[in-house]
Amino acid sequence: MKPADGFTLSCPIPIAEYPTVLLAHGGGGKLTRALIEHMFLPLFRNPQLEQLHDGAVLELAGTKLAFTTDSYVVHPLIFPGGDIGQLAVNGTVNDLAMCGARPLSLSASFIIEEGLPMETLWHIVQSMQHAAAAAGVAIVTGDTKVVDRGKGDGLFINTAGVGIVAPHVSIAPGNVRPGDVVLLSGDIGRHGIAIMAVREGLAFESVIESDCAPLAGLVAALLDAGIALHCLRDLTRGGLASALVEIAETAQVHIAVDERIIPVTDDVQGACEILGLDPLYVANEGRFVAFVAPADAGRALEIMQTHPPGAGAARIGSVAEDPAGLVTMTSKIGASRIVSLLSGEQLPRIC
Amino acid sequence: MKPADGFTLSCPIPIAEYPTVLLAHGGGGKLTRALIEHMFLPLFRNPQLEQLHDGAVLELAGTKLAFTTDSYVVHPLIFPGGDIGQLAVNGTVNDLAMCGARPLSLSASFIIEEGLPMETLWHIVQSMQHAAAAAGVAIVTGDTKVVDRGKGDGLFINTAGVGIVAPHVSIAPGNVRPGDVVLLSGDIGRHGIAIMAVREGLAFESVIESDCAPLAGLVAALLDAGIALHCLRDLTRGGLASALVEIAETAQVHIAVDERIIPVTDDVQGACEILGLDPLYVANEGRFVAFVAPADAGRALEIMQTHPPGAGAARIGSVAEDPAGLVTMTSKIGASRIVSLLSGEQLPRIC
Repeated sequence: MKPADGFTLSCPIPIAEYPTVLLAHGGGGKLTRALIEHMFLPLFRNPQLEQLHDGAVLELAGTKLAFTTDSYVVHPLIFPGGDIGQLAVNGTVNDLAMCGARPLSLSASFIIEEGLPMETLWHIVQSMQHAAAAAGVAIVTGDTKVVDRGKGDGLFINTAGVGIVAPHVSIAPGNVRPGDVVLLSGDIGRHGIAIMAVREGLAFESVIESDCAPLAGLVAALLDAGIALHCLRDLTRGGLASALVEIAETAQVHIAVDERIIPVTDDVQGACEILGLDPLYVANEGRFVAFVAPADAGRALEIMQTHPPGAGAARIGSVAEDPAGLVTMTSKIGASRIVSLLSGEQLPRIC
Repeated sequence: MKPADGFTLSCPIPIAEYPTVLLAHGGGGKLTRALIEHMFLPLFRNPQLEQLHDGAVLELAGTKLAFTTDSYVVHPLIFPGGDIGQLAVNGTVNDLAMCGARPLSLSASFIIEEGLPMETLWHIVQSMQHAAAAAGVAIVTGDTKVVDRGKGDGLFINTAGVGIVAPHVSIAPGNVRPGDVVLLSGDIGRHGIAIMAVREGLAFESVIESDCAPLAGLVAALLDAGIALHCLRDLTRGGLASALVEIAETAQVHIAVDERIIPVTDDVQGACEILGLDPLYVANEGRFVAFVAPADAGRALEIMQTHPPGAGAARIGSVAEDPAGLVTMTSKIGASRIVSLLSGEQLPRIC
């Protein structure tokens, strides 16, 4: 391909090493990070994007507006505990909540593969409406495209969302500071394992269901109580480990967590052992970490535990100054290890 | 598929007739309209969506915010006069402009097929940045997903956008009224023909280039001049004909246009004849119609003609009361005919 006029920059991803895009470039690990840091960020450079948060917060005529987007390509479309429609609504609602915003309106854009059963589409669209009603948001604008058979995979959905951030609220990775307490909203790994179990045809004693849930109500309760929230991050692709590493790197702090306190259900733990996965890296769709000022940590934990999606919340660690940019974890046998981003693809198309 | 609890509604699209989604459901014609009217609209029902406009206008703490989204699935990714990246930026900028908004920020979400050449991605991302800079918008948030080889088609891009609508501005199909003058911003059909020529391997004397362009500057000039704009609509999928039919139906007015005044270049006309297409239905990506109060029409036309994307603007018709919901056209031989939505798919994956 010949570059057009003015396209003089050479590709910032080493072509010799990565001549084409790999599945792992979308996995939420090191290669995704490389695309963002070397390709998107330098080119699109602006203060909102540089926050490297779940959404952008814009100042509009004195109002703080949160704006976020995600495309959903989960396979299969319908899985234990949810479907792509519910995921697409909750995922974007949660990204807004992670900015400290009250979600208001969503867009919904469908890329349908020719041949998708009409009743499947109908099921998923109904599911979106149920999820939107449950989260108190309206779907106000949309788009529908259809691609030829063999050029898609049933259905991809993009949702974007807007929400209002209260004037005094400022939640972003850059606000995390030494002394902060790390709270986790519940047990991890259920969404990823629910998907993998269906794909691999694994049957467990009880069906493992996705944790897919809207988190905006819980975040609003924390904000309403005046909790000093410094950063929130939902644990999607790449799981708890990737969320912590990204925040430690952006905030240039040391995050220390204790694996012995991180809740994982027995069935998820068992499934992870069978599948050779580490639950720390498995995707969730209804879990988040909160970085909270130490004085507020106890109260924040109580509030989380009284809300259904935070019933299993736990205090899993704290933030220190050095070594900056690093996440360490006390393992189950009491040893300390460094937690890093995965270099490969653990679970493709999990969301 | 077994419906989940609470999913008791039966599918509003007749399954016997349409057991699966067809390419034409995404073509911008009758079947797209049926999906929107029977499936999305009744389920998601809210005042913004019911406007059936290019975007939603939300009231936020005294500020009018326009919010819109589109997914782009154009094939091929790079074509004469543009590429999917430029299209994804201009398309959403234009949808905001059609709401009378000043575009501010975009999101960009990529669904990449494993195996896409890294340099193609780089070319397209650069093109997005060029287009964003030209339109004066920032890309503030995004997402990257990768799907397995054979489950996508190189690259799909979703952009959503937000913009500010001035307090006194109200532009929507429902505002069109009898007496309004219909202005068209330039010659039609170039985008669709540029794409089809590449796909079909047609060579013309000169290469036909897409008209892909940002329209927000031109719309801002009209608004700044105080022109009484009642409705704006860019002519994408389904072309001029579909835009007029949709507006006539929503506003319940009669729109009469004159084919003899509608600008079509000789090369586009010739290509349409070879391909068996009617330029009225061919997609554009840098053209719009404006419905303007008659007293302002002359001045509006002058302003349009002084801006590059409106250089070929023309006054193509007017609005009457009856027959409500109908578009009629005086043809080249002077006869009057009814213009309707296409029932099939004219040009799949044009945007």
